[in-house]
Amino acid sequence: MNDVHASQPSGPPIPLASVGVARVRKPLRVRRPGRTVTLSAEFDVMVDLPASRKGSDLSRNAELLAEVVDQTSSRPASSLEDVCTSIARQLLARHPSARTSTVQSSAEYFRRRGLRPGARSFEDYRILASARAVRRGRRIETARGIGAEAVGMTACPCAMETCRRALQAEFPALRDPRLAAMPIVTHNQRNRTRLVIELTQDGAVEVDDLIELIEDAQSSPTYAILKRGDEGRVVLDAHRSPRFVEDVVRGVLGRVVQRFPQLPDDAIATVESISEESIHKYDVRASARVRLGRLRAGR
Amino acid sequence: MNDVHASQPSGPPIPLASVGVARVRKPLRVRRPGRTVTLSAEFDVMVDLPASRKGSDLSRNAELLAEVVDQTSSRPASSLEDVCTSIARQLLARHPSARTSTVQSSAEYFRRRGLRPGARSFEDYRILASARAVRRGRRIETARGIGAEAVGMTACPCAMETCRRALQAEFPALRDPRLAAMPIVTHNQRNRTRLVIELTQDGAVEVDDLIELIEDAQSSPTYAILKRGDEGRVVLDAHRSPRFVEDVVRGVLGRVVQRFPQLPDDAIATVESISEESIHKYDVRASARVRLGRLRAGR
Amino acid sequence: MNDVHASQPSGPPIPLASVGVARVRKPLRVRRPGRTVTLSAEFDVMVDLPASRKGSDLSRNAELLAEVVDQTSSRPASSLEDVCTSIARQLLARHPSARTSTVQSSAEYFRRRGLRPGARSFEDYRILASARAVRRGRRIETARGIGAEAVGMTACPCAMETCRRALQAEFPALRDPRLAAMPIVTHNQRNRTRLVIELTQDGAVEVDDLIELIEDAQSSPTYAILKRGDEGRVVLDAHRSPRFVEDVVRGVLGRVVQRFPQLPDDAIATVESISEESIHKYDVRASARVRLGRLRAGR
Amino acid sequence: MNDVHASQPSGPPIPLASVGVARVRKPLRVRRPGRTVTLSAEFDVMVDLPASRKGSDLSRNAELLAEVVDQTSSRPASSLEDVCTSIARQLLARHPSARTSTVQSSAEYFRRRGLRPGARSFEDYRILASARAVRRGRRIETARGIGAEAVGMTACPCAMETCRRALQAEFPALRDPRLAAMPIVTHNQRNRTRLVIELTQDGAVEVDDLIELIEDAQSSPTYAILKRGDEGRVVLDAHRSPRFVEDVVRGVLGRVVQRFPQLPDDAIATVESISEESIHKYDVRASARVRLGRLRAGR
Repeated sequence: MNDVHASQPSGPPIPLASVGVARVRKPLRVRRPGRTVTLSAEFDVMVDLPASRKGSDLSRNAELLAEVVDQTSSRPASSLEDVCTSIARQLLARHPSARTSTVQSSAEYFRRRGLRPGARSFEDYRILASARAVRRGRRIETARGIGAEAVGMTACPCAMETCRRALQAEFPALRDPRLAAMPIVTHNQRNRTRLVIELTQDGAVEVDDLIELIEDAQSSPTYAILKRGDEGRVVLDAHRSPRFVEDVVRGVLGRVVQRFPQLPDDAIATVESISEESIHKYDVRASARVRLGRLRAGR
Repeated sequence: MNDVHASQPSGPPIPLASVGVARVRKPLRVRRPGRTVTLSAEFDVMVDLPASRKGSDLSRNAELLAEVVDQTSSRPASSLEDVCTSIARQLLARHPSARTSTVQSSAEYFRRRGLRPGARSFEDYRILASARAVRRGRRIETARGIGAEAVGMTACPCAMETCRRALQAEFPALRDPRLAAMPIVTHNQRNRTRLVIELTQDGAVEVDDLIELIEDAQSSPTYAILKRGDEGRVVLDAHRSPRFVEDVVRGVLGRVVQRFPQLPDDAIATVESISEESIHKYDVRASARVRLGRLRAGR
Repeated sequence: MNDVHASQPSGPPIPLASVGVARVRKPLRVRRPGRTVTLSAEFDVMVDLPASRKGSDLSRNAELLAEVVDQTSSRPASSLEDVCTSIARQLLARHPSARTSTVQSSAEYFRRRGLRPGARSFEDYRILASARAVRRGRRIETARGIGAEAVGMTACPCAMETCRRALQAEFPALRDPRLAAMPIVTHNQRNRTRLVIELTQDGAVEVDDLIELIEDAQSSPTYAILKRGDEGRVVLDAHRSPRFVEDVVRGVLGRVVQRFPQLPDDAIATVESISEESIHKYDVRASARVRLGRLRAGR
Repeated sequence: MNDVHASQPSGPPIPLASVGVARVRKPLRVRRPGRTVTLSAEFDVMVDLPASRKGSDLSRNAELLAEVVDQTSSRPASSLEDVCTSIARQLLARHPSARTSTVQSSAEYFRRRGLRPGARSFEDYRILASARAVRRGRRIETARGIGAEAVGMTACPCAMETCRRALQAEFPALRDPRLAAMPIVTHNQRNRTRLVIELTQDGAVEVDDLIELIEDAQSSPTYAILKRGDEGRVVLDAHRSPRFVEDVVRGVLGRVVQRFPQLPDDAIATVESISEESIHKYDVRASARVRLGRLRAGR
């Protein structure tokens, strides 16, 4: 049978960086510390295409993904990034004419936690994972990304100072020095922060650590179950740690250095923090992308 | 040529409530007080289908929509709901076998406003409009819906009381009676509220009024431009009017009665208010649907 | 402590139909025939609010949801609709002033299947479930909805006839009677169809049956893994069963009657079918909502 | 008043690549050939932040955007990319401590067109625009991106060959040489393709040209109004030009070279084509990013 994909390209014979299947949804069993979870994951599975071929045989991508996912039914994967790396590597075997492959994935991820032991429940986060494989002669080099997204809360430090002054003018009794440390009203809101660590070689970063580190850098984590006293505690905690998105990004980066001394200097941390501003209809966003070596050198 | 649509239905010969084109996007020129605006609108244009026909000729819906939209280039429509009503009515003429038609539309809508004269800019809202036509012998009866959505801010009254008690315990100086009226920290967040008025006959409700009425019922409107002093003012305004979503819904309904004495008792107001909670990852929502006559009777 | 929620409402003292937590995401273990699956589910958990109360204590909704979800870790639920019904019922116990409660849920759902035994993999669907409880004196009445959404493919019967004529004019050899039954080109596209069965009393409908029934009513199911010959078979199958969205809706209804003879006459079937038209930028949609008794009576 | 933003950063003193307001929605008047249109546009307006500052004064971004948008009420802008470039340039004046600024924008864009003169109506597309400004001593250098997205239709060339063979086996009369050129069934679907041209200096590319060039590279454009004969023509056109997403990407690149001989060799074209596969629940995607000089050299 005539192989349409292998025929001459129509259009200019230029190589394409990326061809593949996108937004494929799969259930995936993954081991977490002390338990096994089933993730609803989404995958983009791509290879490059040389100038000489019209098309890429994409049924191979779908088949390979299905095989790897099926294996996790009986043998749960160690992590989403390991799954991505395994797929990226095998893609090059199934696409002899491809030189690079990339796999991107994200999945909803539930963790059981709470403000107090008696008020624990599942909270939703996202795991982000990716892998890239490059053929170098007979060797295959891989790189990977491991990340997480957590929604928490920020309280604005700037509006707090503005309100403090306005309130001191209206309520002079607020100038009482015994009230100097008291939290003052400001706008607070949902904050959505992502952290991804890119490694040029295999290496483990526990996604639970990434989530805790993000939540620690926000003004406060948020919780599904909050009885009345708990609500007050979260509000007060957040107002005692007012933070800009800029602070959250830098706070995450500082914590990455402290928490992961074993990561190599050429690992790259990317952080993006989005504030769904309560006083605006639009968002505020900050981001940075830094090599750990530079972070460790204090830039 | 064989008319496939008019042939016998496959499957059981039951009438279908609604068949049509959905999510059709169109530019639409509409008059507003003192100006003409171009809306990016989305339309669902539907008719019912009798049991005897296999299919509905939907190219008529698309053609009719295009004609009505085109006319607004030279003669702007008076409102989105008038456009919907006009389409619903003409649909029945073009679909002789249809007995009812419905048109749903929504459009982004910009209004220029601000906290102060010197800080005005465009803020984004949504207009919601719908119409329904029913053939009664040779007469066509229509009903319509006119609505708006506005994003503003709410501050939680319950967490404010919890925080007041906690802060009074930690900072006894806060019990100073001169501080009794001072706003206290609480969680605040984006609030998204929709109001739709349904009328069984033609009748005008100005969408700008609906928007102002929603914003008045939230803890505070929000603004694109806020210099530092302005941010403080919005935060303090919101904390001086702490409101649950339940308060927002009832507040909108109360204002509908006051603002629209001319509307008939059989008009129906539907309100939905969504709080994108800053202390939770999920939303909180309240809704009601009430006849104005009942509202006026104090239920 | 002063209970803000129980205080007098601000705004007009009208009852609110629905107040609650929305878009809460939870992992849920559910039994399916021969296996246990973990669903990533989303919940809206609502009660009504009497005119006399300012607010509803929504932390009870979040707590109850968490408790029910937690139980499924050790004892998987029989179905998503059973979980909804259980929550709806218990909500009324926790909200003594509420008279009605509603729980809406949807979840991604994976089934392993394929065109051939050797090409099976997980395909993604959605489960839709809801429950409503009403307090009648000391008794609680419940009703429930059980549904599914499946993405498949439709091929248009009308454009096929148009193309047949055009091709016969251009290629007279196509008039050869031996080609009369040959599939002719038409536009085909993704079709997204939902079916929900509403029951006024407890009763079981297997969601896998709903999915199979929807896929059977589309021109063809779609598959994650299709080798080249398989692609051709799916395309030919679809072109041998060209169907409008109207046909899909009626086809689903007809199959509901055949497949579920045990369901009561007052059960209601709601079907919506959306065609993501390949020849238009907009969608085409048909829907119906019918009592099974009426369907059985051939209307 | 104490300037919180200018104070020492909390967290490690590292510079942030990008801080700003995101997803700001604005109406914008823009000249198009022979007319003026109002776009509903969305903007991300960002600057970098030096290591020494805690925060960026983002109210300046919102103010500047509002000023530029307001000017278009009386003096329509020449293009969305000109608006982005103007904002990027002025951002550096308002943020003395910033070294780079970026503005990203996209807007829905309607063009009136049709398959025939008598069946013209508005079709929806997207305009994509961006600008980046960098401070080099007292000079400011800018670069810009100009792009468009168009939804059309592709028919799969591979499944067409598979179906041809299967049909020839089942219907030997199809082997009649007079039917060799006749279009054969295959899967067809919505195709969404984006093209962005990046220029390191000011330069004009007409977005209408980008759209036409994309539509020309797809199997067929799609239309809002298609009477029955028209539907057949679009289906036949598409089946006479069956194309993979790979073909669409290369076809767009080839047409860029032909249509824009005046663009410099260092201009970069980025193309992404997404096929919303009718035979799969997932998408298929191809992309490339190439310097025009390389394209012109035949790589």
